[in-house]
Amino acid sequence: MSKGITSRSEDYSQWYNDLVKKGELAEHSEVRGCMVIKPYGFALWENMKAELDRMFKETGHVNAYFPLFIPKSFLSREAAHVEGFAKECAVVTHYRLKNADDGSGVVVDPEAKLEEELIVRPTSETIIWNTYKNWIQSYRDLPLLINQWANVVRWEMRTRLFLRTAEFLWQEGHTAHATEQEAIEEAEQMLDVYATFAEEFLAIPVIRGVKSASERFAGALETYCIEALMQDGKALQAGTSHFLGQNFAKAFDVKFTDKDNQEHLVWATSWGVSTRLVGALIMAHSDDEGLMMPPRVAPIQVMLLPFLRKNDPDHNTAMITKAKEIETELRALGIRTAMDSDETKRPGFKYAENELKGIPIRVAVGPRDLENNQAEVARRDTKEKQFISLDGFAESIQSLLEEIQQNMFTTAKSFQQSHITEADTWEQFVDLLDTKGGFVLAHWDGTAETEDLIKEETKATIRCIPLNQPKEQGECIRTGKPSNGRVLFARAY
Amino acid sequence: MSKGITSRSEDYSQWYNDLVKKGELAEHSEVRGCMVIKPYGFALWENMKAELDRMFKETGHVNAYFPLFIPKSFLSREAAHVEGFAKECAVVTHYRLKNADDGSGVVVDPEAKLEEELIVRPTSETIIWNTYKNWIQSYRDLPLLINQWANVVRWEMRTRLFLRTAEFLWQEGHTAHATEQEAIEEAEQMLDVYATFAEEFLAIPVIRGVKSASERFAGALETYCIEALMQDGKALQAGTSHFLGQNFAKAFDVKFTDKDNQEHLVWATSWGVSTRLVGALIMAHSDDEGLMMPPRVAPIQVMLLPFLRKNDPDHNTAMITKAKEIETELRALGIRTAMDSDETKRPGFKYAENELKGIPIRVAVGPRDLENNQAEVARRDTKEKQFISLDGFAESIQSLLEEIQQNMFTTAKSFQQSHITEADTWEQFVDLLDTKGGFVLAHWDGTAETEDLIKEETKATIRCIPLNQPKEQGECIRTGKPSNGRVLFARAY
Repeated sequence: MSKGITSRSEDYSQWYNDLVKKGELAEHSEVRGCMVIKPYGFALWENMKAELDRMFKETGHVNAYFPLFIPKSFLSREAAHVEGFAKECAVVTHYRLKNADDGSGVVVDPEAKLEEELIVRPTSETIIWNTYKNWIQSYRDLPLLINQWANVVRWEMRTRLFLRTAEFLWQEGHTAHATEQEAIEEAEQMLDVYATFAEEFLAIPVIRGVKSASERFAGALETYCIEALMQDGKALQAGTSHFLGQNFAKAFDVKFTDKDNQEHLVWATSWGVSTRLVGALIMAHSDDEGLMMPPRVAPIQVMLLPFLRKNDPDHNTAMITKAKEIETELRALGIRTAMDSDETKRPGFKYAENELKGIPIRVAVGPRDLENNQAEVARRDTKEKQFISLDGFAESIQSLLEEIQQNMFTTAKSFQQSHITEADTWEQFVDLLDTKGGFVLAHWDGTAETEDLIKEETKATIRCIPLNQPKEQGECIRTGKPSNGRVLFARAY
Repeated sequence: MSKGITSRSEDYSQWYNDLVKKGELAEHSEVRGCMVIKPYGFALWENMKAELDRMFKETGHVNAYFPLFIPKSFLSREAAHVEGFAKECAVVTHYRLKNADDGSGVVVDPEAKLEEELIVRPTSETIIWNTYKNWIQSYRDLPLLINQWANVVRWEMRTRLFLRTAEFLWQEGHTAHATEQEAIEEAEQMLDVYATFAEEFLAIPVIRGVKSASERFAGALETYCIEALMQDGKALQAGTSHFLGQNFAKAFDVKFTDKDNQEHLVWATSWGVSTRLVGALIMAHSDDEGLMMPPRVAPIQVMLLPFLRKNDPDHNTAMITKAKEIETELRALGIRTAMDSDETKRPGFKYAENELKGIPIRVAVGPRDLENNQAEVARRDTKEKQFISLDGFAESIQSLLEEIQQNMFTTAKSFQQSHITEADTWEQFVDLLDTKGGFVLAHWDGTAETEDLIKEETKATIRCIPLNQPKEQGECIRTGKPSNGRVLFARAY
């Protein structure tokens, strides 16, 4: 097949779009900013979701569901939150259509105007804390550890499939605690869950840190984040976990009676990851031939390709039968396996298609190999081929999938490590951003003014103040003012 | 605990509300018509969803995701569809808020008015068929077997938790086929899937049939449905599957080139079930003591209650240790088990709470029983208690769960069977509806006028024309005109 994928060196952004579209992950819909997640892309998201859901439940969380709509006035209750979220959003003003008088279709019925407009949730802190008010009275009701899988809408003017869309799918955890310490531990725990998930399942190494004050979530006292590095040297925020202090408890008057019989405001966290992770996965791993799916989340882990001949039904039946036997063996070990037995497509076409879709392992089942009790196995990551004995085949494939998972992580990790560079002068800093890219560790004077200035001049932002960053006295890269440690800069998605 | 549940005989409707609220399944939110699904209710929905999703995948369907918003003009494309769905819906007219000039909060920014209003999807045929237009060119692209799990909004004026809410969760399957026959088979297959799910997992017997023309889905040529019977003798539509003919293909110009090289319009189906099934489950099974969860979908199948004493930590530790051993055994068999080791609550309180929540099996772990190597096991359905040996305990519990599942179905089935009555005169018909309730099989002349008349006079609707209903000549119960077979009437939710 002619893939028609733009190469990364030619146009990274177009390469990304080509992979998303030709890899059949998603496409733009006719609704501005909203995407259609196609079956292959959705299967990937389902695998990611299943794993995250398991991790949330293992850490004591339960799922629930809160309304899609938020009364407009709720957004105004928390001052910082309204500034961050009440601006670009979808506003429901009416609840009925009627036939147009001129028969031209349907029009909004002006009689059916809502008394108070409803906002399609951009995030659910307000509606959830308004609900928690009724759920929390005593210390016995705490902690409340709830997660929601939902769609949210933020009216973005410039959208990109998965990375930035008006509607996207995500999960949002919203927890309530009796003490500040417990809430902070929860926020940190969920950051760990996200980091583990990104590294062990998506094979994307991440840096854990906290955001600078100006990059914090609207309403948070601290925003923890994991930052990933894409192959073009740009950073991508892959997940955030917020310590919200008592801001939402104050805004919605959520208090509990402690053992001491005193009323206290409740402490809060929220944390989320979204379909944006699909974009991160694509840009962290794929190549000019197509996608590269980490085995642990790949919708199809192994593609079986029986070697078929035109007009030779006996041969073809034998090959397909053998391939089905292998399929059964693989599935018995829980390996997600598919088979392509379309006679009308040439093997070369199928190979290219498998590469494009990023299927980790391709197994060719041919007559000569069968005679030797083996099959030809090709890896998507290294493109190496090898013959593997059909004795214990499923176990061999299982090990190979693990090897591919590890190799993808190692490759991404060494790329990340080689793209974390210290800069000590402004010239060096600017030069690094323009030539090498990646993360730049540099001193910063701690002020929002300098942060803004650097952003304006270089388009680089403070991705995070890394956790466990060694204390180091230095001078701000831009102003020369004193600094206590380096922070992580990068240009970012 | 004082349950404060209204009895069914006193006020069935209030009984239902009490169970939903006190059973912690859901509650009304402050957004009109939208509910909050609480963790216990959502866990039930998750179990239902997992099973349905498995059944959909086994029948060859894949999941995808389409936009929340539908451009207003899309709804007008299919004439019947717009009549059915474009009326009571949430309309997004603006995409931005701004600070009010008087500092009173945020207001809709009049500058940010959408050129074309967006409707929050009440169902997704239009946006999906608009997308399918680009996905279908050749017979090779067919069939397209796609399902979506999503939230939808229909602006209902009178809402009831789970049964009728403005926003609800559901799945909607949308399939495209090359032939009429294949599409009809698909619609029938999905009806079978729904019926199997309702009977085998929810333990709710259903009657399969087709809707009369006036009760059909807006845009369908045939609507297949499953009808369930609630304990108050009212029917509840539990799932529908629609044969849409070529209506949506025409409306969105979706054609394919067949092997004969000719262009043809594509044939369609759609099918859905929703969180309404939770309402059906509650009303089909529960009693005045509380909910009754069918084991196969119960969030908690077994509750372990170690017998605890105040101020006797040694005793309590021993009991909890033993209960944990049992828990581990049960979980090893995949039994969803929880333990209540709260010393501050009396056993009687815990029993009542377990009844209220409808947990199928309660296991008391006490010192005397342990000496006899047994535990006291109480069933929620029959309220029987028995002593079960701790040897092979998990297997015994597993069988008991299956027995409860079967018993719940059998009980519901005999109730249903005893509430399907034939009526041959109008007086009998009206009397049956007013006294006994349930389904009434009666002749109908086949006209919408008579159907409307009967509805107006008795509030009973034609629930369905049962599949495999024997042909029988008769006279319409209302008009005396000739009829070819009986149809199923009932008052319904």
